[in-house]
Amino acid sequence: MDCSTPFAPRGDKKSVEEGLEFAPKFDQDGLIPALAMDASTKEPLMLAYMNAESLRRTLEIGEAVYWSRSRQEFWHKGATSGHTQKIVEIRTDCDQDALILLVDQAGAGACHTGRSSCFYRKVEAPGAGKSAQLVPIGGEKTFDPGQVYGKP
Amino acid sequence: MDCSTPFAPRGDKKSVEEGLEFAPKFDQDGLIPALAMDASTKEPLMLAYMNAESLRRTLEIGEAVYWSRSRQEFWHKGATSGHTQKIVEIRTDCDQDALILLVDQAGAGACHTGRSSCFYRKVEAPGAGKSAQLVPIGGEKTFDPGQVYGKP
Repeated sequence: MDCSTPFAPRGDKKSVEEGLEFAPKFDQDGLIPALAMDASTKEPLMLAYMNAESLRRTLEIGEAVYWSRSRQEFWHKGATSGHTQKIVEIRTDCDQDALILLVDQAGAGACHTGRSSCFYRKVEAPGAGKSAQLVPIGGEKTFDPGQVYGKP
Repeated sequence: MDCSTPFAPRGDKKSVEEGLEFAPKFDQDGLIPALAMDASTKEPLMLAYMNAESLRRTLEIGEAVYWSRSRQEFWHKGATSGHTQKIVEIRTDCDQDALILLVDQAGAGACHTGRSSCFYRKVEAPGAGKSAQLVPIGGEKTFDPGQVYGKP
């Protein structure tokens, strides 16, 4: 194993699928998708990405640390807003190229728009030749992002 | 709008986040991640990817149609195994670059390894200098993939 990360090298298909060594697969940009869910309600909160180092830090400190693709920097969720995500459980899938984070979400919400979840709209299937529309689903704002992030 | 897909063009940040037009963002490979969850239990089942056409087909037929990155072809989930995923609800997130599928999973399970969910292992945080290990979480096989897929 590479001593700089706590992950195993990728083995063959059988060892990845049936083994108990954690050998996450990062994509061509070095990232793995991580879907955060509320550990109590199982509501999906947000989908973000981690690189190897942010995943290592997440395991180390027990709070979600993502890699911000837009800012190209580590993103300790809640460092600015106080809305940290305490890790209750991390799951990986059969081919170990995706993560589920079951978290205790601190503060009013996970979404930078001021809502508890980023998934506050559902897709309405379109009629023939029509375009698909979104419908709000209980996504009332639970905090004022201007106040929390200090931006208008 | 492009008449070949039922999606709106991407607008500015405000319209993407607060608007009700569905304008999904596909990545440089033309894909958007889609996390399927059991609509009743909210258990995460699998994470896969869709391109615009597979998303259009999903909306059209009401069953999950992914894009297989490994096979580079459309993947109507359950076409081989019978384990289709009937769409109950599709959610998108604030920046419309991720999808949640709430599904009725037909048959014994979502995972090609023979389990109900692909997320059948959790990650154990490693001790200092140690490598991270996986722990099975109720992922007993619910079907025989050899029988279902006709391969040993």
